[in-house]
Amino acid sequence: MTTHHSIHPLDAALALSSSHSEGAGQYTGHTSPAYWNMVGPFGGITAATLLQAVMQHPDRLGEPLSLTVNYAGALAEGPFTLQATPVRTNRSTQHWTLSILQAGADGAPVVTTTATVVTAARRETWGAADTPMPQVPAPAQCKPVQPAFRSEWLQRYEMRPVTGALPEQWDDSGDTSLSQLWMRDAPARALDFCALAALADVFFPRVWLRRARQVPAGTVSITVYFHAGADLLAQTGTGYLLGQARAQEFRNGFFDQTVQLWNEAGAMLATSHQIVYYKE
Amino acid sequence: MTTHHSIHPLDAALALSSSHSEGAGQYTGHTSPAYWNMVGPFGGITAATLLQAVMQHPDRLGEPLSLTVNYAGALAEGPFTLQATPVRTNRSTQHWTLSILQAGADGAPVVTTTATVVTAARRETWGAADTPMPQVPAPAQCKPVQPAFRSEWLQRYEMRPVTGALPEQWDDSGDTSLSQLWMRDAPARALDFCALAALADVFFPRVWLRRARQVPAGTVSITVYFHAGADLLAQTGTGYLLGQARAQEFRNGFFDQTVQLWNEAGAMLATSHQIVYYKE
Repeated sequence: MTTHHSIHPLDAALALSSSHSEGAGQYTGHTSPAYWNMVGPFGGITAATLLQAVMQHPDRLGEPLSLTVNYAGALAEGPFTLQATPVRTNRSTQHWTLSILQAGADGAPVVTTTATVVTAARRETWGAADTPMPQVPAPAQCKPVQPAFRSEWLQRYEMRPVTGALPEQWDDSGDTSLSQLWMRDAPARALDFCALAALADVFFPRVWLRRARQVPAGTVSITVYFHAGADLLAQTGTGYLLGQARAQEFRNGFFDQTVQLWNEAGAMLATSHQIVYYKE
Repeated sequence: MTTHHSIHPLDAALALSSSHSEGAGQYTGHTSPAYWNMVGPFGGITAATLLQAVMQHPDRLGEPLSLTVNYAGALAEGPFTLQATPVRTNRSTQHWTLSILQAGADGAPVVTTTATVVTAARRETWGAADTPMPQVPAPAQCKPVQPAFRSEWLQRYEMRPVTGALPEQWDDSGDTSLSQLWMRDAPARALDFCALAALADVFFPRVWLRRARQVPAGTVSITVYFHAGADLLAQTGTGYLLGQARAQEFRNGFFDQTVQLWNEAGAMLATSHQIVYYKE
């Protein structure tokens, strides 16, 4: 009898190898078919991969506090190079700049993604939740939805909408951009910073809801602020997160989206914001 | 009779000179005493200066869409070098990485600030305001406040609080982090992208309000999403902006702050977010 311990798809997708001969902080990875979106990888997996490089970097001090990812171009299927550089280390914060490169049509490296990360030392202080978790039914009371369209990455998440699921009719009758849903990795996996970064980006483009029209859309830039430390992530374990997303303004081909993520106990784990391109 | 056309303090602070001998996108500037904060320049003026380099860059295409600034270390009084690099240009977006450097104690350059900017081509599309401006009294009905403490940059802004002014007693009795105020440059100056970027950062640390306790605090990272194009900024002119700021979570020495900025006509000009260090 053989026991198979298969690696979780998220961990497989986040696998990076460092090449010391190439210089400190240079990693190579490979896009994951398990997290493929329409024209490239799911944006959340790219964000998680950048953060993973920081987590693995031997010079890292502290835990993730802030992550900004700019999607300059879609990654092509295949290998990529990731450069992570700590440009300044202070007493309580460390500042990182990152980029992902792939060979372009002529073989020369092309920047597909840029990012900045701040890691920080957390300490016990006075604290307060100024945006408490909304009162919603428990995860078990909310039915899981089947993926709304054929993108492989949707299979990697269990989503149980509370409100703001995709419209049943694409009839331009939308009136709100608010979504609330319980969610976690599928199969379930203990939460860590990289998984949390990816979960901050699982929401459908708000224009689809607000407009009840499915138009081309893609994240241009996302920022995640981590309010949880490793202890709180460990407590959250494989539990569900409540995610809430809404847009603030749709104008001239771009809208923004604000996100909050709480664990089942009502602790705020992360807040996030993104600016999204849409076309119609 | 002589007519004096004095330069606005904001324009003086944003003056950058490019040195072609130093390479494309390298600029030199000088910190401005007019925007001095407690231990360095007002964060908003640093954000505006980074954006100014992009605005001046001969290769720029499109208008600012997104700006993220990471405050790695306080700038010292004196000259600085600013590097702005367009790393990828697409059909509708252009991605920039930026940094500010100053000579450290040993004379070697030290990174004080990193940033990313996305510029984009705006086009006419369907649009909607999903966070309408709150109903508040007009600017003339709100009294201007005198600067609450001795920081020179506070003299550069006219602020007329609607709600959420600083507490009159620092007695730990705070119960909200919400502020709404009318504001503009002082003296009045026609709004542009750089001025708007700076205005996104004028709010006092939310912990001071929520806690009614004045503790050391400083922005670690700020992101501004520009929803207005140049036309709308020109229409706004020297009018007031309504700024609204609130925190979502205070935990372990860091809190976040979400911001919306509308013009007097109720058009959303920008949304912004920041993560702030606090100590107590």
